[in-house]
Amino acid sequence: MSKATVTAVTTIGFLHPGKMGASLAACATGAAERLWASAGRSPATATRAVTAGLVDVGSLDELCRRSDVIVSICPPSAADGVAAEVAATGFGGVYIDANAVSPATAQRVEARFGDRYIDGGVIGPPAERPGTTRLYLAGPQAAGLAPLWAGSALDVRALSATADGAPASTLKMAYAAWTKGSNALLLAVNALASQAGALDALRAEWELSQPGLRERSDRVAAGSGPKAWRFEGEMAEIAATMAAAGLPEGFHRGAEELYHRLAGFKDHPAPTLAEILATLAESSPGAPGDAG
Amino acid sequence: MSKATVTAVTTIGFLHPGKMGASLAACATGAAERLWASAGRSPATATRAVTAGLVDVGSLDELCRRSDVIVSICPPSAADGVAAEVAATGFGGVYIDANAVSPATAQRVEARFGDRYIDGGVIGPPAERPGTTRLYLAGPQAAGLAPLWAGSALDVRALSATADGAPASTLKMAYAAWTKGSNALLLAVNALASQAGALDALRAEWELSQPGLRERSDRVAAGSGPKAWRFEGEMAEIAATMAAAGLPEGFHRGAEELYHRLAGFKDHPAPTLAEILATLAESSPGAPGDAG
Repeated sequence: MSKATVTAVTTIGFLHPGKMGASLAACATGAAERLWASAGRSPATATRAVTAGLVDVGSLDELCRRSDVIVSICPPSAADGVAAEVAATGFGGVYIDANAVSPATAQRVEARFGDRYIDGGVIGPPAERPGTTRLYLAGPQAAGLAPLWAGSALDVRALSATADGAPASTLKMAYAAWTKGSNALLLAVNALASQAGALDALRAEWELSQPGLRERSDRVAAGSGPKAWRFEGEMAEIAATMAAAGLPEGFHRGAEELYHRLAGFKDHPAPTLAEILATLAESSPGAPGDAG
Repeated sequence: MSKATVTAVTTIGFLHPGKMGASLAACATGAAERLWASAGRSPATATRAVTAGLVDVGSLDELCRRSDVIVSICPPSAADGVAAEVAATGFGGVYIDANAVSPATAQRVEARFGDRYIDGGVIGPPAERPGTTRLYLAGPQAAGLAPLWAGSALDVRALSATADGAPASTLKMAYAAWTKGSNALLLAVNALASQAGALDALRAEWELSQPGLRERSDRVAAGSGPKAWRFEGEMAEIAATMAAAGLPEGFHRGAEELYHRLAGFKDHPAPTLAEILATLAESSPGAPGDAG
């Protein structure tokens, strides 16, 4: 592949099509071929890959041999391992790491691919309709890759590369640092008032002077409770990112602890705020029957 | 004074009329007499007291001898000392502590006055027009005191007392835990993006998916920068309150550190976000010329 342009002959490979990855793959209709490798993957992943229109080439080696561009989208903790496996095949194309990783992790991946590395970050839900989801790409070749997704539901945006940073990964971290960090703070504040018997008063005061916070508290309980188990690790990555940037890590250490205590709501359908607050009270380090 | 009612003969004393205290005093038009004690206070305080319509009785002893009700509104760090001074005079009336103190501090003050203690908390700016400011009062006699401020710009609300808590103080803490804690988090997130060269991208993404955060960031920089020096201590009180409630203290330890770094903006007229972010970058523990 030319360094600066993507032509209709570009072949793109995806590692590994989870819900988000499959949506990025389904949207890459500017590529001549869209591939994945089924070796070692689950039937659910295979179903998603077929639905996204991906061609199975079997092994990782074959995927790397045939692809001009590889997109990695996997759990953050697996990102560098996946990159290492790809590099070990001798892959010579462009490697897009679209994972929610800290800039430190991004730089480890970059070291494996040099100027063929693209720092990526996705903001929004899996891209099923236009306007919901952005794929940010940074690096010398980022602008040339956008046509792979032209005309699809995915909005691809190129960021200027900086001398010493991973702007797409940092953007993703900063975005989640606010959304998931402030949601955790809001639950902690509700819990504090609740434990002093002042929650009704707080909610009434919010109605007067902070409109929307009452409703947001209920919405966060229902929406974030079931995902807390996976937010915990993301908060730890953000805390480390803050510390590496010389900023306070406390906000996200607090959020990490709060989500940790809510991990039991995994697969729970939309808990109420009262259920979340009861669990926070029970899981307090000083509570009877302390669970940790 | 009767324990349950306030009559037109009630005399109320104020310690010490700063901006907020003077506004509470000016609104207490349901009292027969409104007093203060000028001994040891500054000319600025005296001017505020006169403007609020307070009668100077000279000494603290005289104030305590003549008052049926005393309202304490002072810096949080002075709250328990002021209470100790009042108790030492043998004051036998009702003591309202309206300071932004932790429940632990509130309980120390309560121990000095027993069932003559009222836990209070003010939310909003100094009360100059109706609808902006609430004085929350909790304790057996709270409801009976509201008529002191009837018909004024100050909205007095009684909270149910709880067996082991200071609901008005906790309400004030919880309220500020969100407003000032989330503002600090927002500045930290802006700083993180800025240091990676991703701030413009973050602000553009916020325009798409988190409307209002861009404007809020600018507003917080201008509004909270000059007050950061006094928010630092309040964040420490809130962190301790969270910890005492068995909740994560990290959020407000982070906020405490962030405001600490911005203390130099005291008396600075409305700093820009760029000025705030430059100071956060310079004051990073790893920055050249580290200031702490």
